[in-house]
Amino acid sequence: MLIETKFNKLGADDAPGQEARQSAEHIELLLKGDTVPGRKVDFSHGDVDAHEPTPGAFDLFSAGVEQGGSQAYTEYRGDPHIREIVAPRLANFTGAPVDAADGLIVTPGTQGALFLAVASTVDRGDKVAIVQPDYFANRKLVEFFDGTIVPVQMNYDRVPDEEAGLDLDALEDAFKAGARVFLFSNPNNPTGVVYSAKEISRIAALAEKYDATVVVDQLYSRLRYAGTSYTHFRAQAVDAENVVTIMGPSKTESLSGYRLGVAFGSARIIARMEKLQAIVSLRAPGYSQAVLRGWFVEPAPWIEERIRKHQAIRDDLVNLFRSIEGAFVRPSMAGSYLFPRLPDLAVSHSDFVKILRLQAGVTVTPGTEFSPHTANSVRLNFSQDHEAAVAAVERMAVLVERYRK
Amino acid sequence: MLIETKFNKLGADDAPGQEARQSAEHIELLLKGDTVPGRKVDFSHGDVDAHEPTPGAFDLFSAGVEQGGSQAYTEYRGDPHIREIVAPRLANFTGAPVDAADGLIVTPGTQGALFLAVASTVDRGDKVAIVQPDYFANRKLVEFFDGTIVPVQMNYDRVPDEEAGLDLDALEDAFKAGARVFLFSNPNNPTGVVYSAKEISRIAALAEKYDATVVVDQLYSRLRYAGTSYTHFRAQAVDAENVVTIMGPSKTESLSGYRLGVAFGSARIIARMEKLQAIVSLRAPGYSQAVLRGWFVEPAPWIEERIRKHQAIRDDLVNLFRSIEGAFVRPSMAGSYLFPRLPDLAVSHSDFVKILRLQAGVTVTPGTEFSPHTANSVRLNFSQDHEAAVAAVERMAVLVERYRK
Repeated sequence: MLIETKFNKLGADDAPGQEARQSAEHIELLLKGDTVPGRKVDFSHGDVDAHEPTPGAFDLFSAGVEQGGSQAYTEYRGDPHIREIVAPRLANFTGAPVDAADGLIVTPGTQGALFLAVASTVDRGDKVAIVQPDYFANRKLVEFFDGTIVPVQMNYDRVPDEEAGLDLDALEDAFKAGARVFLFSNPNNPTGVVYSAKEISRIAALAEKYDATVVVDQLYSRLRYAGTSYTHFRAQAVDAENVVTIMGPSKTESLSGYRLGVAFGSARIIARMEKLQAIVSLRAPGYSQAVLRGWFVEPAPWIEERIRKHQAIRDDLVNLFRSIEGAFVRPSMAGSYLFPRLPDLAVSHSDFVKILRLQAGVTVTPGTEFSPHTANSVRLNFSQDHEAAVAAVERMAVLVERYRK
Repeated sequence: MLIETKFNKLGADDAPGQEARQSAEHIELLLKGDTVPGRKVDFSHGDVDAHEPTPGAFDLFSAGVEQGGSQAYTEYRGDPHIREIVAPRLANFTGAPVDAADGLIVTPGTQGALFLAVASTVDRGDKVAIVQPDYFANRKLVEFFDGTIVPVQMNYDRVPDEEAGLDLDALEDAFKAGARVFLFSNPNNPTGVVYSAKEISRIAALAEKYDATVVVDQLYSRLRYAGTSYTHFRAQAVDAENVVTIMGPSKTESLSGYRLGVAFGSARIIARMEKLQAIVSLRAPGYSQAVLRGWFVEPAPWIEERIRKHQAIRDDLVNLFRSIEGAFVRPSMAGSYLFPRLPDLAVSHSDFVKILRLQAGVTVTPGTEFSPHTANSVRLNFSQDHEAAVAAVERMAVLVERYRK
């Protein structure tokens, strides 16, 4: 049965946040020693209790409820007034115009935007260039729509600090082989590296040359650390009608609970995305849309403080991973992910991820979710309570030594 | 280009709530006489200002925000505590058990549930039995997943009052022709008719005989008018693993702005739906999920009053439509839709729908959205301010006379 095969590929057991549904039977047999006590930390996603939502977000939601029917039932692509408020802010942030009427759609989370963008550009049998490693849903989405993945390696562990390390020749080969869609996250999820201006402009030139559609997931592009310069792809693209950019207030701003995202750029693709949204979920949650009124106008010190705090956690965790013999970690340039590679262990790394949860109360996402070539790595979302995160990685280090090969 | 054809079929211009995006140029040439003044009424969806959300819903949402991270990031299928609260209530309402752990998923609206249910049961080339008329997304969803529609007529206009009028022999023919999925709404959208116990038990017997999966959209099944008896399909089904029931607090309860729905029944299908939800929207809006705590425990007088008010509006509108010569309307047995057939006009009925909006400030949904055979009908969601709804249908009657053939 075809559909069964298709859904088997969609396996979500190792997906972040789903760990509670795993069975741990065979792991019991592998356990050595006692548990390492400490406060549980779930690095599979950010802790919005440690880094609270933008001030005022709840009040904007309440005002949306107060507004009533017109906020509950918006156009499928989102409330036109809110689109008019948000469009110039996105244009200002990304350095290229955004058409509030035809070039912007509000979606249920950035995941919603990604789903609609892939569905609107990838047809059965189409080749799609996908970065390895990159956000796991990219691959799953292409597979779900029966597209064919053409992997392009990102050598984030072997390039100068200011580069992401995408193999640009391999990207050109993918286009030569027939890929007409390129989907990537910048900052990269899971590594936190940011593409250099040179890399972005080369990608733009290749997209132009091969008339490819580019979908860029910029979910974390506001949370940038000292010394990181960021180039918005859409501002470099030759044909803006071939570009869709995805963002959302769910990460930096800790507004995930409202389930909001946006996609903007190509009117042609966004028209399709709206048609599809009409049968997928009708619209982004109506009252939640009102929260977007406060997006990009947070007090500057609030954003600065948020970045400062995350940078401090990042630095401490990077130092801890660097103290583990044989481990490798590249400090993230933006966002709140770290993707350390662990040394060889006496158990498989995927079992080690389960052991970590059972013996140390530490949840991380296995590297295989992001690339078949990063099985030795794990992803941590370090948007956590600072002390708890440090203590959790210390426990991780204890278990790495205990299970070292 | 295949994908373009596919999206052309998804046309959403006439979909409820999208009218603001239509261009009205050619209509100007058809207009006769002046506008008929009056308060605008949008019958394309319910007016949640006239019929307000369940008391306490906002407080439950606020408590969800207060709860923080654990409510923002739930399992993809929804918060397990909330599933445990809701499952027995759904079991009690529908008369068959609901497994909170494996047999229930919370989705972004009932639209989200429908999308996931169809995606999880319909493969490319699969035949799917679809009622005509029925909710327009049913057809669009099957088409989007490259399924083949086998239409089954519902003769709602030619049967005794207690029947929906489904052509059960045609349903059996559809199964004989290879359809293995049957998707229908009960109460039927757009007509508001409810399937009789006899019809439901015959559908259950046919589904058993042909081993078909049945997806039942029961969105409006709580809002039942005096004299209507309702039979839950899942309580009659022989193989519960072949049935998914969809509901949500978005209609009767006026909670659409929170974007919530549920699907329950088959653990096998719901497991697929969750895997897919992980890449479609991750989860139903986290904080909104908390609103489900109040679902099915509203004060009895509140629900009774809501039904009484809707019945009174229904009765007035039915009388108005019956006073139009050549029109036909069947009183809805449940829900808040009426689907009157209008007499022959000098303009096409689809143009008349646009004229209605321009000259009378009245928005209705054209009958072609629901079946190719109901072009002369229009759908009204009469969950509106009573007086405004009556005045709007009076203006409609004026324009029917003005444009009568």
